[in-house]
Amino acid sequence: MIERMHSNERASKIVKHNGVVYLSGQVGDAENDIQGQTTDCINKIEALLAEAGSGPNQILQAIVWLADMDDFAAMNEIWNAWLPVEHAPARACGESRLARKELLVEITIIAACDTDYNY
Amino acid sequence: MIERMHSNERASKIVKHNGVVYLSGQVGDAENDIQGQTTDCINKIEALLAEAGSGPNQILQAIVWLADMDDFAAMNEIWNAWLPVEHAPARACGESRLARKELLVEITIIAACDTDYNY
Amino acid sequence: MIERMHSNERASKIVKHNGVVYLSGQVGDAENDIQGQTTDCINKIEALLAEAGSGPNQILQAIVWLADMDDFAAMNEIWNAWLPVEHAPARACGESRLARKELLVEITIIAACDTDYNY
Repeated sequence: MIERMHSNERASKIVKHNGVVYLSGQVGDAENDIQGQTTDCINKIEALLAEAGSGPNQILQAIVWLADMDDFAAMNEIWNAWLPVEHAPARACGESRLARKELLVEITIIAACDTDYNY
Repeated sequence: MIERMHSNERASKIVKHNGVVYLSGQVGDAENDIQGQTTDCINKIEALLAEAGSGPNQILQAIVWLADMDDFAAMNEIWNAWLPVEHAPARACGESRLARKELLVEITIIAACDTDYNY
Repeated sequence: MIERMHSNERASKIVKHNGVVYLSGQVGDAENDIQGQTTDCINKIEALLAEAGSGPNQILQAIVWLADMDDFAAMNEIWNAWLPVEHAPARACGESRLARKELLVEITIIAACDTDYNY
């Protein structure tokens, strides 16, 4: 009843259960600025959701952590251009220092997914 | 299968899927102190849950972010008086600087909701 | 349809709904170092999941908050040794000051659980 993909000793990037997919927190390329890293996160999320039998229109909850809340407006420029209004997820955004100091944003997703994929 | 309410380009305040409702992180009026802002959050959450076909007795998980953990005791005075023991949700509370420096608390909710509303 | 265990005025340590269990954020013994506190968290999570009709192989999402991200490697040594690769959950890890300054790590879990337990 639980399906995991891209698993290692620390985490699975994708965990599916009962029509819901949980993604590990996604981060960007440490060489990029906040807008580049936000775009990286979005691209990784889209790829993982596609693998999971889900998609960007099925995101239920997004938790956005910014290493520096001063990047809020710049991150939102990229974020707001991503999804059509009718598919916007529930979202919360807080400041949290991330695993490496070069990482500026981490996005954690819960989405709906194709239940036929599991059963 | 997914229902969204109060949606804009950034987020939906309410997202319902398969008997579960996800609310965007709720914050208080920036002019209020920590106890006033906590009360504001609770009032907003109650109103959104009512719209979603849910209610404060159906909260599954609450994530509380405080801009300053020194407000923990004052926030808890309001929080603890809110829900009867038999309806207390799973909770985690951490410190996180929020989107504007006047914001002292943000609460993110996952709750059960009426499935008939969706199907 | 919602079952709560270990409830007090602030929170329920266990909340079950529709085959999913939400645990309150678990912390360790404040006298221990980061590796000891991580072990404490794991032990508490295992005990709560067992009570909930779940187990460590059914964790869907783990959110790890470290009071100091400099503890990331030391925490991961304990974390990585915990679960077999095939049962690794989706995970996100950010820095967040916790409720008391002696607390170094808090872990918040969503897991699958036995639905027969509820219905």
